[in-house]
Amino acid sequence: MTDTDTLTADPVTLGVVGGGQLGRMLAEAAGPLGVEVLVLDPTPDCPAAAVARDQIVADFDDREGVRELADRSDVVTVEIELADPDLLAEVRAETGVPVHPDPESVRTTRDKLVEASTLADAGVPVPPFRGVDTETDLREAFDDLGAPLMLKARRGGYDGRGNEVVASVADAESAFGDLSGLVAEELVDFERELSVMGVRGAAGTDTYPVVENVHEAEILRETVAPARTDERVRERAASVARDVLASLDGRGVFGIEMFETSDGEVLVNEIAPRPHNSGHYTIEAATAGQFEQHVRATLGMPLGRTTLRGDAAMVNILGGVEEASPVELTGVHDALARPGVHLHWYGKREARPLRKMGHLTATAADGVDDPLVAARDARDDLTFE
Amino acid sequence: MTDTDTLTADPVTLGVVGGGQLGRMLAEAAGPLGVEVLVLDPTPDCPAAAVARDQIVADFDDREGVRELADRSDVVTVEIELADPDLLAEVRAETGVPVHPDPESVRTTRDKLVEASTLADAGVPVPPFRGVDTETDLREAFDDLGAPLMLKARRGGYDGRGNEVVASVADAESAFGDLSGLVAEELVDFERELSVMGVRGAAGTDTYPVVENVHEAEILRETVAPARTDERVRERAASVARDVLASLDGRGVFGIEMFETSDGEVLVNEIAPRPHNSGHYTIEAATAGQFEQHVRATLGMPLGRTTLRGDAAMVNILGGVEEASPVELTGVHDALARPGVHLHWYGKREARPLRKMGHLTATAADGVDDPLVAARDARDDLTFE
Repeated sequence: MTDTDTLTADPVTLGVVGGGQLGRMLAEAAGPLGVEVLVLDPTPDCPAAAVARDQIVADFDDREGVRELADRSDVVTVEIELADPDLLAEVRAETGVPVHPDPESVRTTRDKLVEASTLADAGVPVPPFRGVDTETDLREAFDDLGAPLMLKARRGGYDGRGNEVVASVADAESAFGDLSGLVAEELVDFERELSVMGVRGAAGTDTYPVVENVHEAEILRETVAPARTDERVRERAASVARDVLASLDGRGVFGIEMFETSDGEVLVNEIAPRPHNSGHYTIEAATAGQFEQHVRATLGMPLGRTTLRGDAAMVNILGGVEEASPVELTGVHDALARPGVHLHWYGKREARPLRKMGHLTATAADGVDDPLVAARDARDDLTFE
Repeated sequence: MTDTDTLTADPVTLGVVGGGQLGRMLAEAAGPLGVEVLVLDPTPDCPAAAVARDQIVADFDDREGVRELADRSDVVTVEIELADPDLLAEVRAETGVPVHPDPESVRTTRDKLVEASTLADAGVPVPPFRGVDTETDLREAFDDLGAPLMLKARRGGYDGRGNEVVASVADAESAFGDLSGLVAEELVDFERELSVMGVRGAAGTDTYPVVENVHEAEILRETVAPARTDERVRERAASVARDVLASLDGRGVFGIEMFETSDGEVLVNEIAPRPHNSGHYTIEAATAGQFEQHVRATLGMPLGRTTLRGDAAMVNILGGVEEASPVELTGVHDALARPGVHLHWYGKREARPLRKMGHLTATAADGVDDPLVAARDARDDLTFE
């Protein structure tokens, strides 16, 4: 058991399965706490490598690699859905090194049918859903849930890949081919998309403010904090988020995505068992950012304060290219010259269409009048050549 | 010439001579800007190593090491007074890699007599001073400047080592032995110690607010931002800081330490050609922290905003041990549990008496009523075993 109440000459190490931008921002936030980050990622020079103590180059489900990660770490965590919960549980049993969040939470959230069932069983409001493994199942789903409906791959979905609105069996076959391993959901008539970053610590849970997200082509473009909706809806969303946290296991930060329906209800859409893109605004706009909070929570330190320093907005920098190509982003000085705009560049070597390459944050705490306009203006300064 | 206006697949690298806590916080701040940090430091696993891309293990004045640093960097900077300005200038000439701040500024500030003369020549107010290389010089200094006076080693001084108040030749001989390479200054009857972090960018200069510093045994203990003094004094200190910046060469952040005399005058005491302990509060309490600002300035990016998000205080965590020993600091959870207190732990392996091991910051921007009390309370939670 790591005693993070005492800092010694042997620094505490947080092992992270995945070394993308989330791992990078974890390492940036871990340093001030005296915590070193070790990442496991198959891509040499992954984004986190530049700021982590070290990288183990191995696939996310590589037994030897994950075992080495645990052997060299005080606690293991994950920053990517592709982490294998069985392997994490085995390595935890072999080494005695804690894994946070609990591999059970990872298992639950990586399968959209299991996730929806778990939440529904816990009394958390979710869109009506049913599993689909055959054409008959799908036809019954259309009968139950109406057409069109939302059809999702139970596993492997990420940034909307594997989610399709379908109106017929033919639609579904053309989108998914084989009609197995799917979950069908009633298409939600939503007013806006909300999310809440929640955290489960060693001695309690907490939530950040309810924020509003704008997606296009199912990829997050912008987050506005707090959400521009009724106080009643915000309170409902925060309450739902607390119920979600109570239904999960282990420690760490969780991203809870929700719909605000056109009649003012709140339904949970998806849960990420890790820091989340819609929580990036917290780095500058909250007292403790989500990455610091994840480090604190997973290592059993007291949680930081989740209060907002000021209204804020986050805008993603997505790969504006037609096809994968080496990064070349111009206009950086113009963006950096905008007063109060914070750049987070992930250091990815290759730009791909709509790939998350970085983000921009602005907050009223820095005296910015309209954070969303400021962040958008900075994004518009930037061009992928 | 590095074009930081375009981000490419080949990340920009800032080479840093020195890998202590300043190098560590530089690396933490460089990551979000997409900048990788390479440090040169003789101590394996120096504080910066955990978050830097890599460390060159070599002495600060090791020719081969500094040459390798330049070869692998886009710009070279320094975080320690022990960097050798001649070597930096030579390597710059050999490689064409820019060095910021200019080695001339490093040369000026590393010699207290040259520094005082340069400032006086530029019309910056400094305490009356004169060089001392013999007993006769010292006697004349007592005649000119009065007794007691402040006697300082021209070079190698750091955290007050090498500064002594002396009332007689005998005092001076007992403190310094040989009476050469010294500078004598009139003992300033100061009301409080102030400092200003200034920055010289590619296209202009800027200053952070005037802050107040509390030293004991000539080591910084606490910084309060802004300084608790008259608006007139703050304006004067800011104006003096601008004059100091104008007298320096090259780009980067400079720490400008000043006295507010008992009759309300401002005198410059010392200049650090780098981020400075009394500017650590800016990490949380200013829009752009001093380390981000140093990265921006040295790499020729537009400067960030220097405005304060809220009143703030910084308290150092100094090695509370009788003699050098492996670090063991208890009470960390109590300190981290204090709402709104930010910990920065430097990851040093060995505690030494009064060594700077970390610091704590609190700011009203996080809703903390009395930042100084909050930061002090957190410090008092911590004990070196």
